[in-house]
Amino acid sequence: MDLVGRCRELAALSEEAGALTRPFASPAMAAANALVAEWMEHAGMETRSDAAGNLIGHLPGSDLGAGVLLLGSHLDTVRDAGAFDGALGVVVAIACAERLRAEEITLPFALDVYGFADEEGLRYGAAYLGSRAVAGAFDPGLFALADADGIHLRDALTAFGGDPVAIASAARPDAIGYLEVHMEQGPVLERAGVPVGVVTAIAGQTRAEVTFTGEAGHAGTVPMAARRDAACALAEFVLAVEAEGRREPGLVATVGRLSALPGAPNAVPGEARGSLDARHPDDAVRAAAAAALLDRATAIGVRRQVGVRWEPRMDAPGVAMDPRLTAVLAGAAPGAPHLPSGAGHDAVALAGAMPVGMLFVRCAGGVSHTPAEAVDAADADASLDVLFRAVCALAAP
Amino acid sequence: MDLVGRCRELAALSEEAGALTRPFASPAMAAANALVAEWMEHAGMETRSDAAGNLIGHLPGSDLGAGVLLLGSHLDTVRDAGAFDGALGVVVAIACAERLRAEEITLPFALDVYGFADEEGLRYGAAYLGSRAVAGAFDPGLFALADADGIHLRDALTAFGGDPVAIASAARPDAIGYLEVHMEQGPVLERAGVPVGVVTAIAGQTRAEVTFTGEAGHAGTVPMAARRDAACALAEFVLAVEAEGRREPGLVATVGRLSALPGAPNAVPGEARGSLDARHPDDAVRAAAAAALLDRATAIGVRRQVGVRWEPRMDAPGVAMDPRLTAVLAGAAPGAPHLPSGAGHDAVALAGAMPVGMLFVRCAGGVSHTPAEAVDAADADASLDVLFRAVCALAAP
Repeated sequence: MDLVGRCRELAALSEEAGALTRPFASPAMAAANALVAEWMEHAGMETRSDAAGNLIGHLPGSDLGAGVLLLGSHLDTVRDAGAFDGALGVVVAIACAERLRAEEITLPFALDVYGFADEEGLRYGAAYLGSRAVAGAFDPGLFALADADGIHLRDALTAFGGDPVAIASAARPDAIGYLEVHMEQGPVLERAGVPVGVVTAIAGQTRAEVTFTGEAGHAGTVPMAARRDAACALAEFVLAVEAEGRREPGLVATVGRLSALPGAPNAVPGEARGSLDARHPDDAVRAAAAAALLDRATAIGVRRQVGVRWEPRMDAPGVAMDPRLTAVLAGAAPGAPHLPSGAGHDAVALAGAMPVGMLFVRCAGGVSHTPAEAVDAADADASLDVLFRAVCALAAP
Repeated sequence: MDLVGRCRELAALSEEAGALTRPFASPAMAAANALVAEWMEHAGMETRSDAAGNLIGHLPGSDLGAGVLLLGSHLDTVRDAGAFDGALGVVVAIACAERLRAEEITLPFALDVYGFADEEGLRYGAAYLGSRAVAGAFDPGLFALADADGIHLRDALTAFGGDPVAIASAARPDAIGYLEVHMEQGPVLERAGVPVGVVTAIAGQTRAEVTFTGEAGHAGTVPMAARRDAACALAEFVLAVEAEGRREPGLVATVGRLSALPGAPNAVPGEARGSLDARHPDDAVRAAAAAALLDRATAIGVRRQVGVRWEPRMDAPGVAMDPRLTAVLAGAAPGAPHLPSGAGHDAVALAGAMPVGMLFVRCAGGVSHTPAEAVDAADADASLDVLFRAVCALAAP
């Protein structure tokens, strides 16, 4: 099975010439669903779409009372995306079903392979639209969201063949769990020199906007001792964020956006703003880091006689993977490292409704959300082997 | 003499309603010249304009061979300016001539009070247009400059009553020196609690654009140890600039503009840019500071495995005030502090052609280039006293 080739084939289905951009409920998404449905059917699965626009390939089990194991990932992308984010997990899940048939293995539980309709949130700014519906947690208030062209989510979903009124029917109370293969989107596995890793948790996330307010002045006439330079306060904060991230294992802390006002080369900055993004799988660790950084910002402000405004923007708790599914994945991938995910995934939305487990695949340079995304064919094959063994292990008595 | 009142009266002559904006060769400048010419004539001076559009009030001396002492400042402003930057020096110079007449003092040399037509460079982006012509250093290539409306400097000057072809006639080889009173535009005199200070030199200026290039990445998935965060490198540089400025007496060093790319809160910055502005009256000190900061940027880059690009943007030498004129001003202002100017003035352009001396006047909060500019009436009067005594001292045998 040419898993990488299938990802590249999917990557040609885009709303933009020369770049991969596949938003929720777009014609490109319909084309992707049609191609993936072909692959599912070729693998012996029955296909359907649910009320949220998710594509589902179904492989029956031998025991109707044994429920359904969900596999898959998402088929939407960011703008100017790479070929593997999402697509890889769908393609590997289909290949897993195909191998079960090839080896004439019938599972007690059924398998449903999902191609989720929205994980990135590109079109409506709200992520996990597909998996939220599967978790039975779709907020109908979202239907009023409008995209950049003013098209409401309700109408886009209807036009795509979904059913807003019946959105609750997409929920899967019969699911016994969800397993997802996904490219790592980071450099940990590449640095460790291993093809796959078992995900332990998806990190929670704190976001805040931090503003320092000092006193603007003429860069030529205000002596250093008389300054209250807001950019210098921000610079100290940027380095405090980095130091805090390095101090605490597993923590990542980033100032991704920064600016100074008035912003002229010959003006002492009177105001400076920076964004904070801090993530850790353990919410208590993350909260402590955020509190420590707020303290640091305050101390910088006091020492420099500069005002500090701290505006919280996000406080999303971490999501732990299910211990049993994680153990099964670990058993199927002996020696594979365990690592948290710093990025969000469909498992975040599904974890409220069912046990979830995830396997990461090494990617080149740790890069993602760019056309440079790359996964080795051998690594994709390795992830298929692990998923196949894990699914079989779950079927063992 | 209500010096502050005259500055406020001039401030009403603007191209913008509700704000003071008086560009070179504008109708507002013509109105200002007309009002100032009235004041000059009331003080017993003959008035004329020169080929560069400068307004000149002439008071004859008793000895035709004794040359001419120039006094004055500029009558143009920045956008949304304060009432005192430039205007104060013109108003004080006229009052000085008026006091000479009131006290029936005839100087051996003549006095020419200048209202320079352009110091700020607001309209054509090239400062000192008026004083460059008086220094005999007007580059005719400047006539081709166009303003925001596409009007060339040549045509604007002609329409204003100037004479581009005869620009050389504005030069004053007969000048024996130039004395200027100007608001400080900084907080030094206010902090020292004194009304005036004697300027020692106008600081030279180094400007550069510094770019750090690391590696962009996902803020959630790239571990701290694997990052080459360009914004952290820039933050270190900002603090190094501040430390260098504090280390060296008289140096000011500023990062006024900073940015990071891609600039998303959830992305590790792969590129970060900052501006550098460093000034010191002693060019060797300034050059050493700039070299030290380049070394620091390089060291930061090496340690962080981040690329550094250093683009020089300006390297303007400092201008020393004339020792004799400075001594005369100091003698006329016993106890006044001596201080360098961090901002540029007409004296920068004139220094190449004649001895120059400057007196600074305390301003509220050290602020300038804003409507909040303020000078106390008593401080303006004090500067008039000093200028009057200095001019008389120059006339002494």
